[in-house]
Amino acid sequence: MNIEIIIIGNELLQGKIHDKNSPWLGKFLLNKGLKLNYSTIIQDSKASIEEALKLAMTRSDIIITTGGLGPTQDDITKATIANFFNKKVEPSKQALAITQKQYQQYGREYNGDKHHYHLFPEDFEVVFNPAGFAPGLKFSQNNKTVISLPGVPKEFQAMISETLHDLFVRDTDELFEAFTIKTFKLPEARIFQEIAPDLWDKLSAYGDVSSLPHPVGVDIGVFLTGSRETIEQSKKEIIKIVEATELKPNIYHYGPESIEEVLVKKASAKGLTLGSAESCTGGLVASRITDISGSSAIFWGSIVSYDNSVKENSLGVQAETLKQFGAVSEETAAEMAKGACEKLNVDLAVSTTGIAGPGGGSEEKPVGTICVGVHSKRGTRTMKFNYRGDRESLKYRFSQVALVSLIEEIDAL
Amino acid sequence: MNIEIIIIGNELLQGKIHDKNSPWLGKFLLNKGLKLNYSTIIQDSKASIEEALKLAMTRSDIIITTGGLGPTQDDITKATIANFFNKKVEPSKQALAITQKQYQQYGREYNGDKHHYHLFPEDFEVVFNPAGFAPGLKFSQNNKTVISLPGVPKEFQAMISETLHDLFVRDTDELFEAFTIKTFKLPEARIFQEIAPDLWDKLSAYGDVSSLPHPVGVDIGVFLTGSRETIEQSKKEIIKIVEATELKPNIYHYGPESIEEVLVKKASAKGLTLGSAESCTGGLVASRITDISGSSAIFWGSIVSYDNSVKENSLGVQAETLKQFGAVSEETAAEMAKGACEKLNVDLAVSTTGIAGPGGGSEEKPVGTICVGVHSKRGTRTMKFNYRGDRESLKYRFSQVALVSLIEEIDAL
Repeated sequence: MNIEIIIIGNELLQGKIHDKNSPWLGKFLLNKGLKLNYSTIIQDSKASIEEALKLAMTRSDIIITTGGLGPTQDDITKATIANFFNKKVEPSKQALAITQKQYQQYGREYNGDKHHYHLFPEDFEVVFNPAGFAPGLKFSQNNKTVISLPGVPKEFQAMISETLHDLFVRDTDELFEAFTIKTFKLPEARIFQEIAPDLWDKLSAYGDVSSLPHPVGVDIGVFLTGSRETIEQSKKEIIKIVEATELKPNIYHYGPESIEEVLVKKASAKGLTLGSAESCTGGLVASRITDISGSSAIFWGSIVSYDNSVKENSLGVQAETLKQFGAVSEETAAEMAKGACEKLNVDLAVSTTGIAGPGGGSEEKPVGTICVGVHSKRGTRTMKFNYRGDRESLKYRFSQVALVSLIEEIDAL
Repeated sequence: MNIEIIIIGNELLQGKIHDKNSPWLGKFLLNKGLKLNYSTIIQDSKASIEEALKLAMTRSDIIITTGGLGPTQDDITKATIANFFNKKVEPSKQALAITQKQYQQYGREYNGDKHHYHLFPEDFEVVFNPAGFAPGLKFSQNNKTVISLPGVPKEFQAMISETLHDLFVRDTDELFEAFTIKTFKLPEARIFQEIAPDLWDKLSAYGDVSSLPHPVGVDIGVFLTGSRETIEQSKKEIIKIVEATELKPNIYHYGPESIEEVLVKKASAKGLTLGSAESCTGGLVASRITDISGSSAIFWGSIVSYDNSVKENSLGVQAETLKQFGAVSEETAAEMAKGACEKLNVDLAVSTTGIAGPGGGSEEKPVGTICVGVHSKRGTRTMKFNYRGDRESLKYRFSQVALVSLIEEIDAL
């Protein structure tokens, strides 16, 4: 089953907003053993929509469009798709009934004079929207199905996963699993060319291998298919293979979970409470941990000390330390981590102090410098690194180092 | 000039990573008065790459591919593109020289036995990578140029903006500006159908109009072209038009800046210092403010008080308040904002306490409930809202409300 998504919107091509629906759909399909084959962003013009539809009808079985179903004048998707299939847009009882139901969920009444949701292409099915006002469109021709949904992520996601989920079913009994080996602290080239040069070929015997480098690590994936027993047996053998290499100390997890999820899981399993003291990450470490549902059981809080006065007053960093070594120093990072543990009353805390740029760098401490501190009953340890990148990617990388350091500390406790 | 980007990578179609290069490129081109016409994500197979290239050669002048240039076995882009144009991959002096220079920037030596960057398609140009090891490819045929770059965002961006920037020049003297009217607290349909039903048509006289709804507001854009005088005159007239409508109190900014940038700019202009006390946003408010370069001049810090003990100990919230009204209450939000102002020693602070879900909701306080507090010398005010969405989108929406509340307070001070 070939599935593709066509994302309609100039604001996406101008970088004003990032598309969240395509990665969400990719994950949704992967969890059902299906693949997303193409994701295309196009301009919201009649010609672009028609061109994209024409191409998609030649190569895909399910074609999903998003965007352009709202109430403003640049919302031309409905009329364009209807016209593409030579269908008239006309008042529809079914569309009216579903639109009224959609309005009712918000305690509002639908006004057909102002909005046009009850005007619908003939022979099209109306797709109920559990999270908004605009209904979706569905039309099948020559065993191909075109679905048109709003671009607002919560509406798009609710319509796919609640209203349309029956469409996305794998036509085989074979099970599958995207098995992931999560590593940190080694670049891709070192893993596959120096540490374990035959790893790729060995893993390929079990399924399609992929390598996904990201800040501070590489995720190695193997796509496993077969019966439950085959898959479980493959996983055991794969673990044996990778653990026989020198990669072993750099593996922090097997499975699809993100670094944040692994952290929350490991802390919960050991009953440890966590906190952070953040300067250069500005709250990003705390925000990433609290993205995980259930984090409130183990994450007490963070003191974001962007200004030195906050480092002194809320974390107890000594004025003398700041003066002698500077805010970006391992000495300050150590006192921040210790201070966070005490003030937040947690078992372990991580601290970050560095220079995310673009300003603020010096010869001695260039942009990209980060000092990290970790404190627990084992004591305080600090590290210093230097990375490259713009402000946003440096902040992310800094937060990644902090999360990895917390995981290492939890493993050691 | 038609420009398109082809993003090669299964991990993107599986939602494991989000594409950052396409929005970045869109913004980069917009700033040069150019448009990105298509952005397509495809699987990293030979057939997919060939199909995408074939299509792109029929419709675009500049075709940029990203991904698949690294050192692992799934990196097949170079061989596939060479083959597409019937070119042999062979040892190249130019590629060797540039690769050696790339390695030198990290103090490393290139080893041609292990890596294959010096093997290059004949007649292709080598594109220097100022931020990594893999060089890019460039090839022109029939007035069309194909450029192949690594997918790592810092490498991709450095190569476009530093090595290749001469390619992206508008072939007209006409100036342009994407003028934006930023509004908050009104949905799109209310603006264009109730408050200002003729606004769209009136603005269309000046250029292409767009409407971009997002949590807590709508950005209305008008694409202006012409001489500097024409554009400035149009902006004046547009401001006059929108301010004559009832939309006026809901406009917080004219210009392309993000809400975070507007906040930092307004606080800086008034010399005000800011802080936050965050429960349900978990540090996201602080992280978003500190995404802005220069925020350190006005943002002192945040106390992320995920656990009630931190609300009491680090913010001075009364145990009695938590007991009587609960952590998610306007009473607690008020004490958090006041506490943050005092503890962080800032002019104004915002607080957030709510339920991001999926667990933790009740009939009285369902998932999506948020209480916000703002404290300054004007006193303390609190608000309560309820939103829908998953944990991630609720956290974002909560942080948006907090940022808007800070802007309103700064405007009032």
